[in-house]
Amino acid sequence: MAPFTFPVRIYYEDTDSGGVVYYANYLKFMERARTEWLRSIGFEQDALIEELGVIFAVRSVTIDYNAPARFNDQLEVVTTLLKQGRASLHLLQEIHRKGEETVLCAGTAKIASLHAESFRPTPMPETLFQVIKNLS
Amino acid sequence: MAPFTFPVRIYYEDTDSGGVVYYANYLKFMERARTEWLRSIGFEQDALIEELGVIFAVRSVTIDYNAPARFNDQLEVVTTLLKQGRASLHLLQEIHRKGEETVLCAGTAKIASLHAESFRPTPMPETLFQVIKNLS
Amino acid sequence: MAPFTFPVRIYYEDTDSGGVVYYANYLKFMERARTEWLRSIGFEQDALIEELGVIFAVRSVTIDYNAPARFNDQLEVVTTLLKQGRASLHLLQEIHRKGEETVLCAGTAKIASLHAESFRPTPMPETLFQVIKNLS
Amino acid sequence: MAPFTFPVRIYYEDTDSGGVVYYANYLKFMERARTEWLRSIGFEQDALIEELGVIFAVRSVTIDYNAPARFNDQLEVVTTLLKQGRASLHLLQEIHRKGEETVLCAGTAKIASLHAESFRPTPMPETLFQVIKNLS
Repeated sequence: MAPFTFPVRIYYEDTDSGGVVYYANYLKFMERARTEWLRSIGFEQDALIEELGVIFAVRSVTIDYNAPARFNDQLEVVTTLLKQGRASLHLLQEIHRKGEETVLCAGTAKIASLHAESFRPTPMPETLFQVIKNLS
Repeated sequence: MAPFTFPVRIYYEDTDSGGVVYYANYLKFMERARTEWLRSIGFEQDALIEELGVIFAVRSVTIDYNAPARFNDQLEVVTTLLKQGRASLHLLQEIHRKGEETVLCAGTAKIASLHAESFRPTPMPETLFQVIKNLS
Repeated sequence: MAPFTFPVRIYYEDTDSGGVVYYANYLKFMERARTEWLRSIGFEQDALIEELGVIFAVRSVTIDYNAPARFNDQLEVVTTLLKQGRASLHLLQEIHRKGEETVLCAGTAKIASLHAESFRPTPMPETLFQVIKNLS
Repeated sequence: MAPFTFPVRIYYEDTDSGGVVYYANYLKFMERARTEWLRSIGFEQDALIEELGVIFAVRSVTIDYNAPARFNDQLEVVTTLLKQGRASLHLLQEIHRKGEETVLCAGTAKIASLHAESFRPTPMPETLFQVIKNLS
């Protein structure tokens, strides 16, 4: 798939007294970007849960912090699909300042498709699977 | 009731790039203290929801910020009951550094007792009402 | 001044296990909206601190929670100036779902202009004072 | 070193509308545990910065989410030193419910010792290095 780019503005809530973005908050930005990527291809997660009985859960994350973001920075989260399974997605998510190439932090996330009641792994809806498969 | 005192340590997550505790986070500390106050008088909120069908919701908050807390501070949240209704509680919550008298911030919270399904106001369980009423 | 409207999308990070937006997080949305309001009239807060030596701090907040927002909601924060002083601003900030009139929560915030080093009250920069005064 | 165990209670602030602890928040618990581990061996991070000119920064994190924690859970973060360098620490941090063996999530964190002004890697203070080295 073509990378999906999502903008994130840094507010005071995102920073810590070290003067930089608090390290856990990049995971929030990554999750926002995944939500907006799904929305951009036609899938709302509340509808996925209520109508199709599927919820996505994060199985694992790796993240490398290369350089800090700061208050008021305008960032972009660039999301790329690394691998698609029937019940899983593996994504690369890189964050940089808008207009700059330096990757401030780079994360990967393995996402599992779960049955919304039992929380057991279940294939994602076929329509969603096909839409993602056919992303160019 | 005698004031209920709950300790809060300030970690990086609580601070912002202004070098102080982010203003919204004091509401987290106030909520932790309310949870621990209820626990201290014998009521767990998950049991209240599941067994008694009652959930507490915040109706309104006022908060005055007098002086900032900082990374690594050891704070105390002192909670006092201002008024008890059948389906409501009005609490004063003051935050100071341990061993110091200066009130860093002072908040009030109006809490409503709601039916856990309908979210309509409902009297709190009689046992809880009586326990709170008899606090000296 | 004309009300300033700022959009906020609700992500998982904003919600709690009650199924609604966690009560402290509305203060984050209010702060984002204030930051964007200042930006919209030409003032970046990092420049205010570094170039003009002024930082804004919240002195007090009141907030009434009328109805809950939920995951995936598209909200708007509508900010109105209630009163302008030489070293203070008093703002009303109302939050509703986009396209709906019901106010989910309504807050007020008193903001003080402080010297960025001493943290003592100081008049806001004259240019900023005039720009706000002349907002129609 | 002997594992260092730090308790964490789950409050509403930690959960999301999926009914479980929001995935980024485990990084907060890990950071709290690292802070308390340093405190337990005699080092306060604000003193490290101000007196010794050293700040710790997270270089990378891996985290596996095996099972969810929920509201009101009493967790423990168990921290073990994997490797010690002159300017780095590599830690394993496992989280489980108190009294249960199941690891809910397991993370590793690479921490760098930085000069507090330049943010360049710098050896940690010799006293701290020796204290950690001599932990049994």
